[in-house]
Amino acid sequence: MPKAQVAIVIGAGDATGGAIARRFAREGFTLCITRRQADALQPLAEQIRAEGGQAHAFGCDARREEQMVELFEHIERDIGEIAVVVFNIGANVRFGITETTERVYRKVWEMAALAGFLSGREAAKAMLPRGRGTIIFTGATASLRGGNGFAAFASAKFALRALAQSMARELGPQGIHVAHPIIDGAIDTAFIRDNFPERYALKDQAGILDPEHIAEQYWQLHCQPRDCWTHELDLRPWMETF
Amino acid sequence: MPKAQVAIVIGAGDATGGAIARRFAREGFTLCITRRQADALQPLAEQIRAEGGQAHAFGCDARREEQMVELFEHIERDIGEIAVVVFNIGANVRFGITETTERVYRKVWEMAALAGFLSGREAAKAMLPRGRGTIIFTGATASLRGGNGFAAFASAKFALRALAQSMARELGPQGIHVAHPIIDGAIDTAFIRDNFPERYALKDQAGILDPEHIAEQYWQLHCQPRDCWTHELDLRPWMETF
Amino acid sequence: MPKAQVAIVIGAGDATGGAIARRFAREGFTLCITRRQADALQPLAEQIRAEGGQAHAFGCDARREEQMVELFEHIERDIGEIAVVVFNIGANVRFGITETTERVYRKVWEMAALAGFLSGREAAKAMLPRGRGTIIFTGATASLRGGNGFAAFASAKFALRALAQSMARELGPQGIHVAHPIIDGAIDTAFIRDNFPERYALKDQAGILDPEHIAEQYWQLHCQPRDCWTHELDLRPWMETF
Amino acid sequence: MPKAQVAIVIGAGDATGGAIARRFAREGFTLCITRRQADALQPLAEQIRAEGGQAHAFGCDARREEQMVELFEHIERDIGEIAVVVFNIGANVRFGITETTERVYRKVWEMAALAGFLSGREAAKAMLPRGRGTIIFTGATASLRGGNGFAAFASAKFALRALAQSMARELGPQGIHVAHPIIDGAIDTAFIRDNFPERYALKDQAGILDPEHIAEQYWQLHCQPRDCWTHELDLRPWMETF
Repeated sequence: MPKAQVAIVIGAGDATGGAIARRFAREGFTLCITRRQADALQPLAEQIRAEGGQAHAFGCDARREEQMVELFEHIERDIGEIAVVVFNIGANVRFGITETTERVYRKVWEMAALAGFLSGREAAKAMLPRGRGTIIFTGATASLRGGNGFAAFASAKFALRALAQSMARELGPQGIHVAHPIIDGAIDTAFIRDNFPERYALKDQAGILDPEHIAEQYWQLHCQPRDCWTHELDLRPWMETF
Repeated sequence: MPKAQVAIVIGAGDATGGAIARRFAREGFTLCITRRQADALQPLAEQIRAEGGQAHAFGCDARREEQMVELFEHIERDIGEIAVVVFNIGANVRFGITETTERVYRKVWEMAALAGFLSGREAAKAMLPRGRGTIIFTGATASLRGGNGFAAFASAKFALRALAQSMARELGPQGIHVAHPIIDGAIDTAFIRDNFPERYALKDQAGILDPEHIAEQYWQLHCQPRDCWTHELDLRPWMETF
Repeated sequence: MPKAQVAIVIGAGDATGGAIARRFAREGFTLCITRRQADALQPLAEQIRAEGGQAHAFGCDARREEQMVELFEHIERDIGEIAVVVFNIGANVRFGITETTERVYRKVWEMAALAGFLSGREAAKAMLPRGRGTIIFTGATASLRGGNGFAAFASAKFALRALAQSMARELGPQGIHVAHPIIDGAIDTAFIRDNFPERYALKDQAGILDPEHIAEQYWQLHCQPRDCWTHELDLRPWMETF
Repeated sequence: MPKAQVAIVIGAGDATGGAIARRFAREGFTLCITRRQADALQPLAEQIRAEGGQAHAFGCDARREEQMVELFEHIERDIGEIAVVVFNIGANVRFGITETTERVYRKVWEMAALAGFLSGREAAKAMLPRGRGTIIFTGATASLRGGNGFAAFASAKFALRALAQSMARELGPQGIHVAHPIIDGAIDTAFIRDNFPERYALKDQAGILDPEHIAEQYWQLHCQPRDCWTHELDLRPWMETF
């Protein structure tokens, strides 16, 4: 019996991570989804199963090296071949520079960059012996541009972009596709609905990103044949200023 | 009877333009393909028809304003609604700066930038009243980076990128999707086969881009829902240094 | 008697070009200043002479290859060694894409890019045999970013930047310093005073660029020792949004 | 008696930091220089004094918030007004992604980014009430581009660049000049001499950067009048490929 093909979504707690997980599950991948509290993943795992897919939920702190090493080893040993890894943890905060505490600067980096590094490195370890695999890091507007109030967030997202570029240049010629989509706009999530109602109202005109559509783009990245890979692309609503 | 949906490929003379034209034709678009000599387009037009599609071939100098205006007006009036325009004319030359004649510098710009401007402007004129449409400009490595020997080519490709960005920012909020894929690598064409045989030999390892795969990416760009548009993406073989 | 050291300012008609010319004249360079009408350069030439400098004014259409070739040959033969060339012709226009005529798109490119190419190429021809020299191309915000209404202007400024990059990569290792300062803000000129009075009022708070200060930066670029060259830098008022 | 004007160089241990400190000391600034071991700073402090300057050496771990807060408070209280802060700590390492330990990834970030954040934030706190000051963060090639083997280093340098951009956009309109010079080439240091002798041999042709020349550029950045500030510039030997 062939081994299951596994897709891991690190940071599957929000609408985007959930939609990505379901998208790959529909194609037959066994989904391994993580966030800090496993409990909170149960609705997503059940939804995947209800749609006919396979799902395993893991409570895992992606900033902790030993947990990540253990997670990837466990999946490879007991569940299947890690074919796809999506790193989807964000940490958007906004503070003026003098109001940014060392704790905030560090935490944002740990969530958005260090956890990305651990995810990417463990993915590479699993994929390199097979010479294939797809690793996708979710970027944001702040990946390309610092801004007033974004010292912490942009620092972390720039760092993640540097990681993605470095890995693409090292691992591409070894058969591993590393991509860095940049999501430039508000996404249809509970967070935007509750905190930015005016923004959310643009949903009627397709002015905010639908997580299902983002997920489709991630799927298309995975489907690219290896003579025609994309490393970086932007995803943005038609009416978004940029 | 609904009007035909038209896709125009400006510069359909090479393998890439041909593959893009066939890809859109397979989806039901009526293809209007152009290059300077219409005769040379007949094999492509026949291939599209043999595959069940509709094709019209036009001999047209895309650097001539009056020809382009006339072409777009004719298509809208007599053939169908212009839904997609792909500008695919390249002009790759390499000369040291002191060996670059004014004629070369100008011709390269006319082919790669001025013709792109005329194509894009006429596309916008046709699409704006309907508030929809897709315009794709083909970019290259030299769109992002000048290089020794590339003063003329990079100047023209940078100019085309500026056009694409400016049009995206103006026309996006009016419903028109403007995209600028950057092809970073050799393509499987007769030109590469004849002039760069060592490079061409990488074809066995998927080391050069397959025009069909590029065409698929162009099609996917057109398919993006408007809440999730890409303006720029790179397309590159897995083993290509970047 | 040693040959005079010549600095050429192409497009010396505005306040910036004038200040640059005077700055280099104060250091002992013989200034060759050009614009289309030589008459209009007389006040600047007289000012340079009044400040103790040497100045030659040339009416010259920088878009005309034969005029530029003749000008540079004449200067090398009859005036002195071309040590510095500053290309300073702008062509800022703003039109929506469908309102941009072919004539405008072409004229803007001819002024801002083609003339830059001719200036840079002739500078390179004069400097290469000596293995030294400084060539500076004036960039703008639109050199880095296309924008709504800026299809023509950004296309031309992107092209000029590609030229500067390509020349820097080719000519740097041959001893010629090619730089591309990007001026990101309004300059204290009659044009801004007459057309953007609110902007001009920021002068009291140093909110617009002083041409003398720009000129000082150009001078500093020329002074950089060759182990420590700058190719690109931005120049921007402290209160300018970017 | 007017208060002393203080320039702080964080990471004054190498040739570059030393040259910068001496350059500002020659202009009358009281220099506060730091590195982890104060002992190792004594030769530099004595050199500054021998050249007629004022110098205070501090052993300080720039990654430790409480130490940095205390340092800046002490300087403002007991020494003078903090007018200039230069952050100059590097952390260049090269490891393949699977050989990069969590410890290395974290340490490099702490040295090159976290310490930069603490330096920049404390500088801002001191300067904001006066509405003036200059903060310079030293960048590198890896600030702009990830590379094979540079996941850790590029992540940290990208993060520092994001910090510099964010601070420039926030603090510029409050009168504080934030700059990010990018040093793209080997510097004339003991490290290069001992580890890259072939590279070091280029010194005879000015093929590596002279720390004194870098220091001059930092001084020029500080001298820019506020209508004409540079945020980012590259510094590179003439023969360096880029």
